[in-house]
Amino acid sequence: MEHREISRAVIKRLPRYYRYLGELMQEGVERISSGELSKRMQITASQIRQDLNNFGGFGQQGYGYNVKYLYHEIGKILGLDKTYNLIIIGAGNLGQAIANYANFERRGFVAKAMFDTNSQLKGKTVRGIPVYSMDDLEDYIRNNDVQIAALTLPKAGAEAAAKRLIKIGIRGIWNFAHTDLRVPDDVVVENVHLSESLMRISYRLSNQEE
Amino acid sequence: MEHREISRAVIKRLPRYYRYLGELMQEGVERISSGELSKRMQITASQIRQDLNNFGGFGQQGYGYNVKYLYHEIGKILGLDKTYNLIIIGAGNLGQAIANYANFERRGFVAKAMFDTNSQLKGKTVRGIPVYSMDDLEDYIRNNDVQIAALTLPKAGAEAAAKRLIKIGIRGIWNFAHTDLRVPDDVVVENVHLSESLMRISYRLSNQEE
Repeated sequence: MEHREISRAVIKRLPRYYRYLGELMQEGVERISSGELSKRMQITASQIRQDLNNFGGFGQQGYGYNVKYLYHEIGKILGLDKTYNLIIIGAGNLGQAIANYANFERRGFVAKAMFDTNSQLKGKTVRGIPVYSMDDLEDYIRNNDVQIAALTLPKAGAEAAAKRLIKIGIRGIWNFAHTDLRVPDDVVVENVHLSESLMRISYRLSNQEE
Repeated sequence: MEHREISRAVIKRLPRYYRYLGELMQEGVERISSGELSKRMQITASQIRQDLNNFGGFGQQGYGYNVKYLYHEIGKILGLDKTYNLIIIGAGNLGQAIANYANFERRGFVAKAMFDTNSQLKGKTVRGIPVYSMDDLEDYIRNNDVQIAALTLPKAGAEAAAKRLIKIGIRGIWNFAHTDLRVPDDVVVENVHLSESLMRISYRLSNQEE
């Protein structure tokens, strides 16, 4: 399927479509009109039609969308028909929380190992996922098939860790460190900046109160 | 200061300005031109001037921006001159990770208590922050000044927990549960949907490979 010119805004919305369609499947719903989907997702039906038309349009007039088909097609577009092996750099609470979250695995993101500079954590396991020393990072990646690295270490070490990962061939970085990484064009970075999200709450709360 | 008509896009960028200005302060930089700031932040100087003009423009021709002043002004706009007490619903790994993250406190977000339905966690503390039973939620909020609740519990319990929080007067929800909460207009929700962020990585990685 050709879907090269899809705007970033549409791509940002796809995981949400995927989630709602997954819920519909769990409820046993086989097909849904853009109108019903619109009500559930609280976006306009015309937005839905427009978004899904990007992929050749899965809907049929008077029938609606085939939930299972659409779910699987969007999954394929999102690359969820493949499996990604994930390592976690930083085995603190956040790293362990990610290792522990079995739901990621259901989507095809399999946490394989954690790495930490703290030698006291070495040998520990979380849900069967071992913690290794940062010294072993390159060796591990050379000998294992790793696509994504989550950075859950403090800001001060994040840039250096990213450099090592990129040098050894990692192309997907899930960055929780509160800093913007400078990376080559062929490296994908998704930032999760938790404090910025908290600041948006405080902004909205204080502007309400005025 | 009047800043009511600021677009959501600008607001989304403010925490990032705040972060860079904070770093400049730490480096001892007293003033910076929009050109220099542009290079650091990798956005255009005209974007910076336009964004900061929303707040009356803090810059002076030929002088640039006063870093400390701008940092504090943006902090005020973001509501960071106040302190927010935070409770965490769900004392699993993610809840504990948030409780453990002392940096939020530096920004004025103070984690006060965790709540969990798992009675085995009751009495536990993380960085001095106690875990209470979910049965004690309403009593705790009635007797303490709480502005924000983080939801770090599974999707199935999130909607019900949010309802209880809103009923007792909480107006800020930091939602990590993988579901969209339906809330009244005066309640602020910020979502952190981790799996959606992972899916954007897989989308971008798979479209690169083609």
